[in-house]
Amino acid sequence: MDPHVSPSSPAALSRVRLAVDCMGGDHGPAVTLPACQAFLRRHPQAELLLVGTEEALAAARGWERCTLVTASEVVAMDDPVEVALRRKKDSSMRVAIELLKAAAGEQTRADVCVSAGNTGALMAVARYVLKTLQGIDRPAIATVMPNRRDGFTTVLDLGANVDCTAEHLLQFAVMGSALVAAVEGKEEPTVGLLNIGEEAIKGSDTIKQAAELLRAAAAAGQLNFHGNVEGNDIFKGTTDIVVCDGFVGNVVLKASEGLAAMLAEFIRQEFTRNAFSRLAALAAMPVLKHFKARVDHRRYNGAALLGLRGLVFKSHGSADAFAFEQALARAYDAARNRLLDRVHHRILGTLQTSATPGPAVHAA
Amino acid sequence: MDPHVSPSSPAALSRVRLAVDCMGGDHGPAVTLPACQAFLRRHPQAELLLVGTEEALAAARGWERCTLVTASEVVAMDDPVEVALRRKKDSSMRVAIELLKAAAGEQTRADVCVSAGNTGALMAVARYVLKTLQGIDRPAIATVMPNRRDGFTTVLDLGANVDCTAEHLLQFAVMGSALVAAVEGKEEPTVGLLNIGEEAIKGSDTIKQAAELLRAAAAAGQLNFHGNVEGNDIFKGTTDIVVCDGFVGNVVLKASEGLAAMLAEFIRQEFTRNAFSRLAALAAMPVLKHFKARVDHRRYNGAALLGLRGLVFKSHGSADAFAFEQALARAYDAARNRLLDRVHHRILGTLQTSATPGPAVHAA
Repeated sequence: MDPHVSPSSPAALSRVRLAVDCMGGDHGPAVTLPACQAFLRRHPQAELLLVGTEEALAAARGWERCTLVTASEVVAMDDPVEVALRRKKDSSMRVAIELLKAAAGEQTRADVCVSAGNTGALMAVARYVLKTLQGIDRPAIATVMPNRRDGFTTVLDLGANVDCTAEHLLQFAVMGSALVAAVEGKEEPTVGLLNIGEEAIKGSDTIKQAAELLRAAAAAGQLNFHGNVEGNDIFKGTTDIVVCDGFVGNVVLKASEGLAAMLAEFIRQEFTRNAFSRLAALAAMPVLKHFKARVDHRRYNGAALLGLRGLVFKSHGSADAFAFEQALARAYDAARNRLLDRVHHRILGTLQTSATPGPAVHAA
Repeated sequence: MDPHVSPSSPAALSRVRLAVDCMGGDHGPAVTLPACQAFLRRHPQAELLLVGTEEALAAARGWERCTLVTASEVVAMDDPVEVALRRKKDSSMRVAIELLKAAAGEQTRADVCVSAGNTGALMAVARYVLKTLQGIDRPAIATVMPNRRDGFTTVLDLGANVDCTAEHLLQFAVMGSALVAAVEGKEEPTVGLLNIGEEAIKGSDTIKQAAELLRAAAAAGQLNFHGNVEGNDIFKGTTDIVVCDGFVGNVVLKASEGLAAMLAEFIRQEFTRNAFSRLAALAAMPVLKHFKARVDHRRYNGAALLGLRGLVFKSHGSADAFAFEQALARAYDAARNRLLDRVHHRILGTLQTSATPGPAVHAA
C-alpha cells in the first residue's frame, strides 16, 4: 500500500468506557445486566455507563467501574422509527447514544455504545444524534459470519440501505476494511464485491461501476480489492470482507440463519427418532456439543453501525446474556483499537484519491 | 379463486418424450447416459431423444424407448454465451432444444428438454430458439429448496434477470404458481414476495409496487398472495413459492449451498478429530446417513426455465448420475402435467385482469 495514505495504527486506548442501553432487546435488563457483570469480570480495563429506568438499574447499584445513567423511556422492539425518533426523546437508547457526544474528559463520556434495541430505530436515532462522517453518504451495518477457514467473513451492508450506488459500495468497502483492521488486526484485509456468476448476466450496472471504483481505490493503495465473489464465497472465506447492498445482505443473513436453524432441527429430529438413534446421540453427544459450540451464532453477535461520528454496536434482539456479552466484547475491541479514527482516516484518504483526476474513478 | 380465470387441470399426458443433451455438464455422457438408463427403468411411459456426438451415443445404440439424435458440436461449460449462440449452431444443447419445435406427431418431437450445460448459454439458446410466451417479458429460472415442513419451497428468479421491474416479479409469481401446480399438484400455492424486515427500510420502490400488483392479482383470483417474506421464510416453508429478482435469488442459492457445505465439513471434522470421536461416528453413522440423505441437495436437482414457448429443465453442471436422474424426473413430471399449457393459461388470465382498469394494477 502507498505509505502516505496507508492507515495509521494508532496506539490502543488503555481504558474504554461503554454506554450500554440496558433496556433494549427482547429481554431487557434480565439479559443485559448479567452480561455486563460477566463482561466486567473479563475486561478489567473497561468501564460501563449503564443506561435504563431507575427501577431497572436498581439491581446494579454499587457495581464497580459502573456509572448508572437514568432514562425515563424505553423504545419497544416494535416501535416505529418515528416514535423512537420524535416521541421518546428520553429513551435509554437515545440517552446511551448521546453519551458518545459528551465532552472529552467528562465522567459520562462513552467511547462506544451498545444496544439490542430494534435496528431501524437504533440506526435512525444514531444517525440523527451523531450525524455521518465527512465523506460518508450513508452509514452501513456490518456483521461477521463464520467461514470454512475457521475465521470470520465481515459482511456489509446488512439492511441500512436498500438501494445503493457504486459510490456507496466503495464507502462500505473502506469502512469494512477499517473495521477488520481494528477488530481483527489485519491491516490490509481483502475485499470481495458480491456478484452472481453466470456469464450472460454478470451483475447490474451498479455492480460493474462499483468494481471499477474498487479497482481504482486498490490501485491508489486505499484497500485490498480481490474482485467479484459469489454467495458461497462468504462461507468459503475467500475474502475478509464481502460488500453488498443492504437488501441482498439482509436476505443472505436471514436465509443463512433460517438454513442453519433448519439443519439443527433436522439433526435433533434424527437423533431422537427412536431408541437406537437416542443411544447413538448419547455416544455422539460430546462431538455434537463441540460442533454446536463451533457454529454457535451467539459467538458472532455484535454488528457495527459504521460511518457515524460515534461508535455504535447492535446486538441481536433475541440475544441471551452470553450473546450480549460477545457484543460488548466486540464493541470494546473496536473502541480500544480506535475504530472511529481508523474509519475517518481511511475515508479521508479515499476522498483525496477520488479528487485526483482519473477516468476509472470518475466512471460512475 | 374466480372460476372463469382459475387454472384448468388438464388431463396428464400418457406418454412423455424427453430430449436429453447428453454432452452437457462437467461429466457429459459418463453421467447423463447411466442416468437416462436408470430413469427409463423407473418411468415405463417415458421415451428419450438422446442428443450428442456420434461417438458419445455409440454406447446407447439399441436402447429401448430411445432415439439417438446426433449433433456435431458441444457447448463447453466455460463457453461464452456468444459462442453457444452464434458459432456452435449444431451443438447438442441447441439441437435438443430445437426438438421441442418439431411438428406434433413427429417421432423426434420432444415435450421437454433437459441439459446440464452452462446456464447462461442454455437460457440464451432456449430464448433464441423458442422465444418467450405472450405476456412474458423475461423468462425466469425456478428451483426448489428444502424446508422445515419436510417439503420444498420453489424460488425464482435464480439468475436470469439482474434488474427486475414490479411487472417481472408478478410474472414470476404467476409462472411459479403454474410450476408448483403442475409438479406438486397444489392448485393454489401460496406466493411470498422476498423483502427485508426492518421498519425503516422495508423494501425498495420496486418491491412495494410488486406487492401492489400481487395483491391485485390475488384479488382477481389469479394467484394466492401471502405477502412479504424474509430470507429465513424460504427454509421455514412459510409459502410454497418465494419470488425475488435474479441477483438476490442467485446469491441466496449460492450462499445456502456454501453454508451447507461448510456445516457438512465441520461435522466431518468433528467426527474424525480423535479416536473417541471416530468411535462416536461409528455409533452415530446410521443416524448421520439418514440426516445426510434428508438434506442431499442432489434430490432437488432440476431447475425449470419458465416463460418460454417450450419446456426446458436445467441440471446442476456438477450433477452425478443420481442427481441428473432427478432432473429428468422433474422434467418428466412437469411435461406430463402440461406445465407449458398451465403457464400459458395463467399468464393469459393475468393479462386479461391487468387490462381491466384499476389503479392498483396500474400503479407501477
